[in-house]
This record gives sequence, structure tokens and C-alpha cells, in this order.
Amino acid sequence: MKVNLGEIAQLTEGTLIGDASVQITGVAGIEDAGEGDITFIGHPRYASFLHTTGASAIIVAREIPDAPKPLIVVAQPYLALAQVLEVFAGSRPEPKGVVDSTAVVSQSATLGADVSVGAYAVIEDGASIGSNTIISPLVYVGRGASIGDDCVIHPMTVVREGVTLGDRVIVHAHAVIGSDGFGYAQEGQSHRRIPQIGTVIVEDDVDVGAGVTIDRATLGATRIGRGTKIDNLVQIGHNVTVGEESIIVAQVGISGSTEIGKRVILAGQAGLVGHIKVGDGAVVGAQAGVTKSVAPGEVVSGYPARSHQAASRVYACMQHLPDLLKRVKRLEQRLGELESEHQGEKG
Amino acid sequence: MKVNLGEIAQLTEGTLIGDASVQITGVAGIEDAGEGDITFIGHPRYASFLHTTGASAIIVAREIPDAPKPLIVVAQPYLALAQVLEVFAGSRPEPKGVVDSTAVVSQSATLGADVSVGAYAVIEDGASIGSNTIISPLVYVGRGASIGDDCVIHPMTVVREGVTLGDRVIVHAHAVIGSDGFGYAQEGQSHRRIPQIGTVIVEDDVDVGAGVTIDRATLGATRIGRGTKIDNLVQIGHNVTVGEESIIVAQVGISGSTEIGKRVILAGQAGLVGHIKVGDGAVVGAQAGVTKSVAPGEVVSGYPARSHQAASRVYACMQHLPDLLKRVKRLEQRLGELESEHQGEKG
Amino acid sequence: MKVNLGEIAQLTEGTLIGDASVQITGVAGIEDAGEGDITFIGHPRYASFLHTTGASAIIVAREIPDAPKPLIVVAQPYLALAQVLEVFAGSRPEPKGVVDSTAVVSQSATLGADVSVGAYAVIEDGASIGSNTIISPLVYVGRGASIGDDCVIHPMTVVREGVTLGDRVIVHAHAVIGSDGFGYAQEGQSHRRIPQIGTVIVEDDVDVGAGVTIDRATLGATRIGRGTKIDNLVQIGHNVTVGEESIIVAQVGISGSTEIGKRVILAGQAGLVGHIKVGDGAVVGAQAGVTKSVAPGEVVSGYPARSHQAASRVYACMQHLPDLLKRVKRLEQRLGELESEHQGEKG
Repeated sequence: MKVNLGEIAQLTEGTLIGDASVQITGVAGIEDAGEGDITFIGHPRYASFLHTTGASAIIVAREIPDAPKPLIVVAQPYLALAQVLEVFAGSRPEPKGVVDSTAVVSQSATLGADVSVGAYAVIEDGASIGSNTIISPLVYVGRGASIGDDCVIHPMTVVREGVTLGDRVIVHAHAVIGSDGFGYAQEGQSHRRIPQIGTVIVEDDVDVGAGVTIDRATLGATRIGRGTKIDNLVQIGHNVTVGEESIIVAQVGISGSTEIGKRVILAGQAGLVGHIKVGDGAVVGAQAGVTKSVAPGEVVSGYPARSHQAASRVYACMQHLPDLLKRVKRLEQRLGELESEHQGEKG
Repeated sequence: MKVNLGEIAQLTEGTLIGDASVQITGVAGIEDAGEGDITFIGHPRYASFLHTTGASAIIVAREIPDAPKPLIVVAQPYLALAQVLEVFAGSRPEPKGVVDSTAVVSQSATLGADVSVGAYAVIEDGASIGSNTIISPLVYVGRGASIGDDCVIHPMTVVREGVTLGDRVIVHAHAVIGSDGFGYAQEGQSHRRIPQIGTVIVEDDVDVGAGVTIDRATLGATRIGRGTKIDNLVQIGHNVTVGEESIIVAQVGISGSTEIGKRVILAGQAGLVGHIKVGDGAVVGAQAGVTKSVAPGEVVSGYPARSHQAASRVYACMQHLPDLLKRVKRLEQRLGELESEHQGEKG
Repeated sequence: MKVNLGEIAQLTEGTLIGDASVQITGVAGIEDAGEGDITFIGHPRYASFLHTTGASAIIVAREIPDAPKPLIVVAQPYLALAQVLEVFAGSRPEPKGVVDSTAVVSQSATLGADVSVGAYAVIEDGASIGSNTIISPLVYVGRGASIGDDCVIHPMTVVREGVTLGDRVIVHAHAVIGSDGFGYAQEGQSHRRIPQIGTVIVEDDVDVGAGVTIDRATLGATRIGRGTKIDNLVQIGHNVTVGEESIIVAQVGISGSTEIGKRVILAGQAGLVGHIKVGDGAVVGAQAGVTKSVAPGEVVSGYPARSHQAASRVYACMQHLPDLLKRVKRLEQRLGELESEHQGEKG
């Protein structure tokens, strides 16, 4: 695959500073790039490599005077990187349209056109797989589950019975969609399991990370909205709903029945209690412990989570606590002395 | 399946307010329920749906005057829900009693009556599976492992060699029981692996969530007590013991050799260091960092975890820290002024 | 297997206090050990069992006067335990050198001498497996992946395409190595996936815990250095590099492009933001939230992570906050009174 810089500038809607005819044959990181590679500077930390990189061209966010290599200046380097990588790597694997002879596909399952099913995958009764979808080796699709078109289901994923995935959904290895919700009723000293007869609905264009667990609802559905992206090892409890285009970073935990709005960002390892609402566009900081609802657009952090601005001030003040204790002790002494003196004068 | 309200009231030991002959054909959430469904109000947040639900009857915790629908008033709505769902959905899947022709079952493994083994499951030498147990497709049962009666082992579970599960144990997808404990001896700059020759014993009626990891003991056994319920993505280190009827919520981590008592609750994302004891009936709050033993019945939270009451006061006070710093500064100024004046008067 | 105490003392470079001819036939924990077993005291908590254990000999860190059993006194009991366990249990399973007839091994894959491949394992085109390596049942090895010599790959591991593992690597069940990095470019309201064309390189002697997820790099490689040990359910983001001989405890999360040095310890549930550096020999406390780079040798803890010494002082002071608030209030009152009196006197 060969593309010249002029074509890349056009594709990325960037401004080329340099020779449009330079041929690009690959994409590489700024430290590893060599002749023929295009690279990018996405984080200021890497700017110092500008003069040492072996790349033939560099995607940057703003013009750099006297750059030693051709530049393509774009508004968003990461978006340009995505566009260029799609040219060289494709945006997803090509389905082969082959059902491996070792796959166990129920006769009552329905497969769309050009579906690929890998070795030792198991597709149970009544399941349906949309066209062009790739079911990797060693995937389990339960009874009556429905997977849309153009999905990529990576190896060792479990899609439990009755679960619905939309189109262009990507599920990474070891994700479990539709495990039983964690619901028990107290019965004397013991815990009686509440059968979880609901399901999970994952809408179009959702990505589900490796090792993610999304529990099925007790009744009704746990729902992940269109375009939402979920990183690895996230736990989503039963009856949770997540709106469209949200971002859930690794190791976040969302307890049962909580409602997450649209375009919400939940940073890594944040935890949310059950039965609360996080409004559209809200941002929850890394490791935050969210114990009550968050208003739309609000940014919260810390434990228990509060307005990020207030929490930052509090955490900054905390560092002065040992000093503050000393100052208060000193104040008490000084005031005591003044009081005695004053008492003495009055006496 | 049809049951009338009178029968449901009897089953749940509830008080029926309404017509006992109303036929119920299903169970649904209050927002989704339609004609023939029974629903429930388990959380006050849903009380407002009482007047809009399409359900034919509602399970509630206390009588509601002028309710538009028949009510069944019970002491514990979640327990009643469990009872009703068991009628309509069963409490666990029915075993088919069929060993799939593609399952690899060692000739030296022993299978009880009516055991089901799914496609591509692998059961190694000397393993034993109790009667009525369901081994789902793509499950791995190691050499000499023992699984009791009436268990449900979901797809892609790994039960490593020598591990013992009791009766009526449920293991959700992608759980790993019996992985090697994380034990190394320092040897110069490097880490020498300590062979982990112990095992894991999971007693009767334990539920193990999706993606849970329970490590085998270095020597002896990691043990999960009868009736304990473990949510998704929990990590249980080597030689940990958990007592009976405890609840371990998602993403909790328990370090090696720690002892958890009976009827303990560990809330989501809590972390416990190794070699401590958590007494019977103790409660550890969400995200708490437990660094020392917890007395029986104690409720702890925060980082490092302390008495929940004290910790709540501390976290509440923390919000006043920026203000407190200002007040102390002002006190210092005022006291300084008073001291100078006083000094001036004396001088 | 029988070894006498004299031989064990020699093997562990310990000092034997007792009869060298005592025969040892096994290793057990101090509470479970019986006749013929050797046990050890690795944690002071277990010293009280010295007089009740049924063991025939005990490995200890220092001489105990009047011990009722023969002692082997060693500098590091855990190291001695590792050495003794290797004698009785071996340091890793013996490869059988058999490729199961149900394994799907691509014709273009290359297998070294004495490789074992378990039932229903899938090895894709161009993959290579080094000699004596054990591929357990139900393992997936992607296209072009390379696994070194003497590795143990436990059941249901996913090694994605192009990933490289060195020699003597152990990968526990359900680990995923090479899942796509979590990289998206904002495009209007939606998130455009950045193809992740990099890889993962795991060097020699690394252990990867159960359920661990290690994402492949966007470009270049995510790299785990020689001898590093990773506990269960750890998340390692794309383009992270970890140096040699580091220890990463369970449920740690490391965000993209962060660099961890050599001999670093990251304690359980710690979280690290992206694009920072943790210097050689640094230690990050359990549950710490690391938001900026950590200097070599530094010990940090808390949220946001700071010097452990400073953080401990702060957390200790925090417990006095409710009292401090009262003291400041009292100071304000007393000072106010003094000021009025003083004003009165002047007036």
C-alpha cells in the first residue's frame, strides 16, 4: 500500500507543509518510524523526538517552524491518525464468510450472509447472527441471542441466552454479556437467589472491552446505548442503563439500576452505587466513589465524589493538615497565655 | 403458566388486597409490565409508577390507600419476588442429562446421574461431577477436581486440578477457581516462584460471579463458606478463608491469608490487605481500604478503613477544610493584633 | 519422595537444629502438618502453632530455644519454602509432548520439540510455539503469535495475533494478551476507533495472572520486562512499558503509555494515569491514585498519591478533623470574648 502525502493531507483535511509527492508506505510511532513511515505527535511529551525521528512525515496539531520533515497540520492529530490507520490497516478484520467445520451451530440458529464462525465456537438454538459478522474461535452464543451485522466477536466471549447486540458491535476476548445479576433476598440468615429473567441490550456501534462483565436485568433489560465505548474489566450491574456515546474506562464498577446519561465519561476504577442517575455530559474522575446522583454536565471526583473543583481544593488543603494542627495548637497556647495575662491584669 | 393472586398471596405469605381470582401469567418490572403481569415496588424510587403501571397486581411492602390495582402486602418484597420468579422461571436451568458428543470426558472421570456436559467441555482424569449438575459448553474441569450435585457451571469457567465444589454451587462464565496463588520469594534481585500445591474448597450453595478469580492455597486450602455469594470480578488471594453466608460485591480484592467471618458484607471495590481478620457480621463499605483487622459486627469505611461513623464525620469535616484554613489564618491575624496591642499597653 | 532433614538444610543453606536423619515426605501448613511433613513459620502470626503442630520439622527465620521439633534456621523462610516445594512438587508441570487430536493447529504454525497442546486449543496460521511449552486445553493463539520455550499457558488464555511471549512465561487462565487498546478520536459527538496495529511483547520469566488484560499498542509495542510478576485481574493499557523484575498486585490498572521502571512494586488496586513515569525501585501503595510521575525509589500512597510518609501523616491528622473543627470554633469564641473585653477596657 502506497499513498502520497498530498493524498493524506486531503484525507485528513490537513495542511501539508512539504512535498506532496512523498510516498508513504506505513504508520509508526515517532521513536520507531523509519523511511516511508508517517508518524504523529499526539502528546506534547513526544515533541522532542521531532528532530530525531526517522519518519518521512509527521502529523502535528500546529505548524512547527524549521521542522526537518514534511508536516501535515490538522485540528485533531488523533482523528487524523485514525483516518490514516484505516487506510493502511483497515478499520476491522475482513470476514472470511466461512463457518469452520468444528463450530457447533444449532440447526435452529440463523446466520446472515458472509458470517464467519471460528473453530470450536458454539451457537445455541434460535440464536441469530447478522451478515458480515465475525464469530471468532471458541465463542459461546447462548439460546436465542441476537447479534447484528458487521460485528466482531473476539475469542472466548460469552454472549448469554436472549441477549441482543446491535450492528457493528465489537466484543473483546473474555467479555461476558448477560451473566446473572447479583440479586438476593434475605431469608433468615441466608441469601435466596432472585432469578434474573431479564436481558441485556447492547445498541449499535458499542465496543465492549476484554474481561468486561455486563449482567442481565432481574426484569426488563440492562442497556448500553449506541456508540458507547467500554474499556477492559468493567463491571456493569443488572438493570443499569448507559446512554449514547459514553466512555467507560477500565475497571469501573456500576451498581444495579443506576442510570448513566449520554456522552458521560467515567474514568478508570470509578465506582458508582446503585439506583442513582448520572446526567448527560457528566464526568466522573478516576477512582471516584459516587454515592449520589450527578447533575448533567457536572464534573465530580474524590471519595465520596463531589464537584471536582471543590474536591481538588479539599485534597490540596489536606496536604496542609499536619501544619494546620500545629498552628491551632500554637494558637491555643498563645490565646491561653493572653487570657491569663488579661485575667491577671483584671484581678 | 397461570397462577391466581390468591395462590401468590399464599406462596409469599402476603396479605392480598383485591380479587384473589385474578390470573397472573408473568412477572415484569413496573415500567414494562402489562396485562397479566405481576410487578413489585422494591425501591421507593419506583413508587410513582404505581398509578401508571400496566401490571395486573403489585407486590408492596406496605398497604397503599386507593391503589388502582390489587396489592399483595409482604414483609420483604424482594423475597416475594424471588418466590414468584421461581414459579414462573424456575430457580435454575433443568439439566438435560446429556453428555454432548464433542465433550472430552476422561475415562477416569466419574459422572453422577443426569449430569449434562456441553459441547467442547473438557473434563480431565479423575475429576468427579455430582448428579444433576450442568457443565456448560466450553468449560474446563481439571484433573481430580470434584464438583457436587445440582451445580450449574456456566460456559468458559475454569475449575483447576484438585479443586472441590460442594452442592448447588453456581459458577458464572469466566470464573477461575484454583489459579496459582501469587507467592514469590525474593532471591537477589529476582522473584522465585513458590509452588502453590494447596487447593480451593467451595462449600455448598455458594455463587461465584463472572470473571471471579479464586487462587489456590500455597499449602492447605483457600475456602469459601457455605451460602456465600460472590459478585463479578472479585479477586480472592491464596489461603483466604471466607465464612458462611457472606456477601462479596463486585471488584472486591482480598489479599492472601486474610480470614473473613460469617455473614460479612464486603461492598464493591473494597480492598483488604493480607493476614487480617474480619469478624462475623462485619460490614466493609464500598471502596474501603482495610489495613487492619475488623471486629465482629463492626462497620468500617474509607481509606484507611475506620469505624463508619467516625469516617463519615471525618469525610463531612473534610468538606470544610478550605474554610477551616481561612478561619485559622484569620484567628492568627486577630490574635497577633491583640497581642501587639496588649504588648503596647503593657510597654 | 523421601528427603532427610540434613539434605533439606543443605538445599536451603540453613542451620539444622536437630536430627539430620529425620525423613521428610511432604510439605504442609503449620496447622495441617502431620508426621513426615516439614512446615514453616513465615509470618509471626503463626508462631503460636510451634508447640501444637504435628510437623516433623519447621523452617524458621531465627533459632527458637526449647523448640519441641527439629528446626532449620534460614535467612529467608519463603525462599527455603520455595526450594523445598520444588523438590516435592516440581517447579512447573511436566510437558507431555502430545498434541491432542482435537487441537486445531494451523499447518503454517511451527511447534518446537516436546510441545504439548491440549484438547480444543486453537493455534492460528504462522504462530510459533517453543520447545517444552505447554498449551493447555481451550487456549487460543492468534495468527503469527510467538510463544517461547518452557512456557505454561493455562486453559482459556487468549494470546492475540502477533503477540510475542519469551521463554518460561506462565500465563494463567483467562488472561488476554493483545486485546485492542482503548483509543478513540473524538469526531463530532461520536468516538472514532483508532485501529490498534501495535503488539505486546512479554519478556522471559514473566508470570501473568488469571483474568489479566494487556492491551496491544496503537503503534509499536506494549512491553512487560523480564521477570516481572503480574497478579490477577490487572489491566495494562496500550503502549505501557513495565521494566524488569517488577511486581504488580491484583486489580491494579495502568493507563496508556505510562512507563513503569525496574523492580517497581504496585500494590493491589492502585491506579495510574497515562503518560507518566514510575522510576526504578519505586513503590506504590494499595489503592493509591497516581496522577503524576514517581521518582526512582520513591514510596507513594493515598489519593492523589504523595510521599507515603507525608500521606500517612495527613491520613493520621484527618482522624482529628472533627475535634479540630471544635477547637477552632472554641478559639473563635474565646478570642471574640477577649477582643470585646479588650475593646471595653479601651473604650
